[in-house]
Amino acid sequence: MFIEIIKNTKEKSPLVHNITNYVTVNDCANVILACGGSPLMSDDIGEVEEIVSISSALVINIGTLNERTIESMVVAGKKANQIGIPVILDPVGMGASNLRNDAVYRLTNEVKFSVIKGNISEIKALVSNCKNSGGVDVQKSDIVDYQNIDEVINFIKGVSKQFNSIIAVTGEFDIITDSEKACIIKNGHQIMSKITGTGCMCSSLIGAYCGGSPRDIYNATVTGIATMGLAGEMAFENINKEKRGTGSFKVYLIDAINLMTSDILKAGAKFENR
Amino acid sequence: MFIEIIKNTKEKSPLVHNITNYVTVNDCANVILACGGSPLMSDDIGEVEEIVSISSALVINIGTLNERTIESMVVAGKKANQIGIPVILDPVGMGASNLRNDAVYRLTNEVKFSVIKGNISEIKALVSNCKNSGGVDVQKSDIVDYQNIDEVINFIKGVSKQFNSIIAVTGEFDIITDSEKACIIKNGHQIMSKITGTGCMCSSLIGAYCGGSPRDIYNATVTGIATMGLAGEMAFENINKEKRGTGSFKVYLIDAINLMTSDILKAGAKFENR
Amino acid sequence: MFIEIIKNTKEKSPLVHNITNYVTVNDCANVILACGGSPLMSDDIGEVEEIVSISSALVINIGTLNERTIESMVVAGKKANQIGIPVILDPVGMGASNLRNDAVYRLTNEVKFSVIKGNISEIKALVSNCKNSGGVDVQKSDIVDYQNIDEVINFIKGVSKQFNSIIAVTGEFDIITDSEKACIIKNGHQIMSKITGTGCMCSSLIGAYCGGSPRDIYNATVTGIATMGLAGEMAFENINKEKRGTGSFKVYLIDAINLMTSDILKAGAKFENR
Repeated sequence: MFIEIIKNTKEKSPLVHNITNYVTVNDCANVILACGGSPLMSDDIGEVEEIVSISSALVINIGTLNERTIESMVVAGKKANQIGIPVILDPVGMGASNLRNDAVYRLTNEVKFSVIKGNISEIKALVSNCKNSGGVDVQKSDIVDYQNIDEVINFIKGVSKQFNSIIAVTGEFDIITDSEKACIIKNGHQIMSKITGTGCMCSSLIGAYCGGSPRDIYNATVTGIATMGLAGEMAFENINKEKRGTGSFKVYLIDAINLMTSDILKAGAKFENR
Repeated sequence: MFIEIIKNTKEKSPLVHNITNYVTVNDCANVILACGGSPLMSDDIGEVEEIVSISSALVINIGTLNERTIESMVVAGKKANQIGIPVILDPVGMGASNLRNDAVYRLTNEVKFSVIKGNISEIKALVSNCKNSGGVDVQKSDIVDYQNIDEVINFIKGVSKQFNSIIAVTGEFDIITDSEKACIIKNGHQIMSKITGTGCMCSSLIGAYCGGSPRDIYNATVTGIATMGLAGEMAFENINKEKRGTGSFKVYLIDAINLMTSDILKAGAKFENR
Repeated sequence: MFIEIIKNTKEKSPLVHNITNYVTVNDCANVILACGGSPLMSDDIGEVEEIVSISSALVINIGTLNERTIESMVVAGKKANQIGIPVILDPVGMGASNLRNDAVYRLTNEVKFSVIKGNISEIKALVSNCKNSGGVDVQKSDIVDYQNIDEVINFIKGVSKQFNSIIAVTGEFDIITDSEKACIIKNGHQIMSKITGTGCMCSSLIGAYCGGSPRDIYNATVTGIATMGLAGEMAFENINKEKRGTGSFKVYLIDAINLMTSDILKAGAKFENR
């Protein structure tokens, strides 16, 4: 599975249009390049349809949304649906404000997303569209562990049906489902939450893999999430060995994504199909 | 002093809302995470009050202000005052344009800031609200040295009274005053001015410490400034040893903030209470 | 040639005003600092004229342009012409949308640019102002090699005459021309296209050198491009030796620019005057 997905993106170098936040945008662009894709960041309503038209995937990330960019997201998403390229939604901080809730409500109503990726709090807020109160990170009451994993998978399968999208929930375990099957990924390291943007980078990585393999969105999503998790482990090993901190961690994370091969991924990915 | 401040932020992981510039925003978020806080960047007027409501501190940085974000800053600042969380102002480039002067005039009139942090040129411009002409860096005529330090401290104490805020002036010596007492910090390294954003990162670090210790703003500010200075020295040592340049310096600076403990800080902080 | 240009920027530390994109803005600021300049990023129409007035050069980069910032670019460019400081244009993604084409059409009509720098697809689109379809990267049909280099140089000389600007075309070979003479630079490494922003950083570097040597724009441009290329080679050597990826490459690239001296540049620059 990994082989084809990774190869396709390296060979086709798909153009990935990102409408994203200004906090982690540089890292997202560098991650897309690191895996072989070609990033393009653009958010003016006057050009997003044209940019979508030359792109192989669209990633919408609401991290620092504003009234101007919400309009661009809707317009770009509709155009992407029209021409049939994959659209990925990262509902960052969903639940933290009505602006975010309303924007995602509108987006999910007007745009068909191939993949929606978030932490469990964001995915729950997506469904209930009601406020939680912990910013962009996961709520303590929402922790996914081995006790409740079956319950969580069932819940996410329902979300997948509701939105007709592949749902990817990241956390200590990552879960990907397309409403029937599910995949649990056990890669990753806690330190990934100690730099900003690992979630955003993961969404852009999924975008790059979906852009390269538009007919295999499920496996492209699994590959994106597994790559990110394993790269996180490898980067942690490096900083641990060299007694470095989170500044170096980010650098080594992008290194690891750039040096990832399907062999390394096959050897290191820890996943379980359900 | 340092022990409690550092511990509080690590244990509580305060959510720090930043309305800041798009140049250094990623580094600011990573610095907040590096010291144990939780950053949230958001600037749309449609959500800033809600975001403030779930936050433990608000940092306003005018680095790349525009008409849209100035309104958000005012609204967010007022809300923060209303719910009683600390608000930090970094008047980047104050004095370089009327837009900046007017924005800060309005902000300081409508919002009560817990801490105002800038270089000496910015703080002088804050008081006189008149133009200087050297961009965002310090003017040569404004250099603080041991000759004029008492004079400068007296001046800053006056500023502190005028704005009813703790004033932190960064430079070769950093000076923090709450109108009665003052602390001079002699940490830091010249190379810190050779990367963008050490000032912004320092403000966000102060935000993370104030968010963890809202009843001890003075010591939180001193801890933030001392941490930044000492981390700068440690990062310089590393690049000096490895013959690296300013690219590596930024990485090691965030590493040093991430690896900082109260023991390291106690051993390395060079300060003098006045 | 290199000696004076490099020295001037280090000694004068020219303030370089950038109206640029939010993807690579941090790297652009750090590159300007790394070579001795002083960056200022500002894009509100309410202040750009004042900021230009205290600056030594203006860099306009349309990477993430929007309706608001296009106006600021025009106003800032006119002011820069009025006070006689160098203005550099980086028409990122030119040809990818009508918004970009129209913006550059307007900019080149209302502002006199000292330097226009882009890849060959962007420069071709600049002339024909017609759409290509490959995002911000070069089109395959546009590859410059030793077969067609004379033809390309003649074409660029014509562009230089048309816009009364120095034209710098980056690619496997970089070509700089002032309509009469031309310089081919053979430095650089393919991996530079595997991180985002090497083009933007190069434009900001040219801005820093032009700001330091406003009467020697041609040589300042050549120095900027040669520095960037050689720094790319040096950074590649480092990651190759250490088995690192593109994350480390960006860090080492900024290191190399920071540690560049005229001696290193003289020894490493591979150029050919035509």
